Amino acid sequence: MKKILIIGLGLIGGSIALGIKRAHPHYEIWGYDRPEVQTIALEQTIIDHAAPNLCSAEQADIILIALPLEATLETLRELAELELKEQVLITDTGSTKQSIIQLAQELFESKKIIFVGGHPMAGSHKSGVRAADVHLFENAYYVLTEENVALRDLLKGLGAKFIIVNPKEHDQVTGQVSHFPHVLASSLVLQAEEYAVTHPLVRQLGAGGFRDMTRIAEADSTMWTGILLSNPDVIIERIETFKEQLDALSVKIKAQDEKGLKHFFDEGKSIRQNMEIHRGAIPNFYDLFVAIPDEKGVVLRILALLQDFSITNIKINEENREDTHGQLQISFKTETDLERAYQIIQLATDFEVRA
Amino acid sequence: MKKILIIGLGLIGGSIALGIKRAHPHYEIWGYDRPEVQTIALEQTIIDHAAPNLCSAEQADIILIALPLEATLETLRELAELELKEQVLITDTGSTKQSIIQLAQELFESKKIIFVGGHPMAGSHKSGVRAADVHLFENAYYVLTEENVALRDLLKGLGAKFIIVNPKEHDQVTGQVSHFPHVLASSLVLQAEEYAVTHPLVRQLGAGGFRDMTRIAEADSTMWTGILLSNPDVIIERIETFKEQLDALSVKIKAQDEKGLKHFFDEGKSIRQNMEIHRGAIPNFYDLFVAIPDEKGVVLRILALLQDFSITNIKINEENREDTHGQLQISFKTETDLERAYQIIQLATDFEVRA
Repeated sequence: MKKILIIGLGLIGGSIALGIKRAHPHYEIWGYDRPEVQTIALEQTIIDHAAPNLCSAEQADIILIALPLEATLETLRELAELELKEQVLITDTGSTKQSIIQLAQELFESKKIIFVGGHPMAGSHKSGVRAADVHLFENAYYVLTEENVALRDLLKGLGAKFIIVNPKEHDQVTGQVSHFPHVLASSLVLQAEEYAVTHPLVRQLGAGGFRDMTRIAEADSTMWTGILLSNPDVIIERIETFKEQLDALSVKIKAQDEKGLKHFFDEGKSIRQNMEIHRGAIPNFYDLFVAIPDEKGVVLRILALLQDFSITNIKINEENREDTHGQLQISFKTETDLERAYQIIQLATDFEVRA
Repeated sequence: MKKILIIGLGLIGGSIALGIKRAHPHYEIWGYDRPEVQTIALEQTIIDHAAPNLCSAEQADIILIALPLEATLETLRELAELELKEQVLITDTGSTKQSIIQLAQELFESKKIIFVGGHPMAGSHKSGVRAADVHLFENAYYVLTEENVALRDLLKGLGAKFIIVNPKEHDQVTGQVSHFPHVLASSLVLQAEEYAVTHPLVRQLGAGGFRDMTRIAEADSTMWTGILLSNPDVIIERIETFKEQLDALSVKIKAQDEKGLKHFFDEGKSIRQNMEIHRGAIPNFYDLFVAIPDEKGVVLRILALLQDFSITNIKINEENREDTHGQLQISFKTETDLERAYQIIQLATDFEVRA
């Protein structure tokens, strides 16, 4: 039996609590958050006890912080003031790792308190404790900044794939595949809007490609502000190399370098096809696109095939655009469902489907 | 009766042929392409006659070129050598317009041959005459560089929405919403691949955001090379302003300007959300909410009742609210459909529904 304290009972904290319970039904899970949130968490049996204040941390064997970055740093400072158990293990779930590890080292190393940085790379567009889902992290990567058997054991019920990544490497990699893409998406939206002032058709002629490229601009601005603030060097450096890349392309365009431009696009295409693109840290959608004719009953037919899957949204993109064709955009909860649905539609219909 | 010559029998040319036939079953459609393609087009009754060579253009009332950009320019030069009909109308379907209009003016203005630039803004990731689809352009924007009653009449069977846009404006707008995003997507892929050399985890930890941002990097490289070559000034200029945007963001990041960064993301989010609504598409304001139990078949059942209505989106809000039922959020194109759907669900089911 262990006493686990989870600080922050949102989607992540709540889901982790459920995952811990799944493997360790006899562990005692304490949860700390605003009272109204604690109430819901108790009702939904996500936690066993509501911690009245942070002092409950003094009884915890393992403390898991599932808060936004800034709040995580504050909580670490507060925990450092307490009389924690001698063998306590503390971990977090922050989207970046360097700033957290740095502070944790300052605060805890001399006290011989073990802190392991964590980053479960999964999410959903839902939020809050009511969205807590025991399946959320299944097959997702869960980064740990160092190996820790106790932590792996605690979290084994999540069904996640643990990988050990040092903080700097973690922030560099997520900087490239997650943070910088968000910078691009929002920047593109702002650029288009500015251009729309003198070219209003920009607002009407945006097509499927523009839609894809800007979807993640709708992410939570507070969370993303926090991420940019905590991973500045990597993101600035990615911006610089990207600008160099754009410059190199400009040179090819100016020179009417047909061969060079074809190579640019060919490379991009084949690299992308070979990349495994999994679910990751950032809340995302597992979307399937099915090209459908404008006939009655088609949508019903497809949905009938997919009855057992966790569909969260069905968008009927009627407008034909440059790179879409009467499209059904089906969003799934998990990557597994997406992949199975993909296969089913391919087998059972003539419709073209892509993810 | 008119004789129509379609040069280029790929997805676009083939689909246009079918659309012309739909409104003008008595028109004679000639098709010009490689012999094997012509054979298929004849078999699929996409065209009535195979033109043995370009001289058939001399009998055409209307000539529609559905070829890639470079081939379109070559074809225009060849057509200029022929003895075309006095009242002939020539049009194209190229993704950019300035370079084509410029050449057409040089070649045809003195001959008093009418050339109208065209750009049907639809497609699919399929290609080739076998993919020809009479529905391809339904509800799609079809740009014409100038008004032309004969052309509108010819193409009315496509079900497209014609808009008149001058060539320069067309290339600027598509440069922003279509061409530049493709540049971004492919550049991101290349940047990530280069980073992956020293940071291999980049290849594993790419998530949904990265997927969205790079999907269009898988587009046809020949087509996109042609587009970049034919719209160089706009794309280079978009690259420059985008770099400036990135620089402005870098400044904010370096300065740890939390307020500025939050504003950046907030702006991007709200602009993008508003773009969805105004973008020629149907505003999703006509929403119905149905409280449904978590049972299989319920969604299908409701959709079966609403088959005749203009549904644009179905959202399955699983997160539980005050009550224990999940909610189906159905968006309609029109208020009339919303009201009829409301009544039908009330009559035919026990589910609670509200608008």
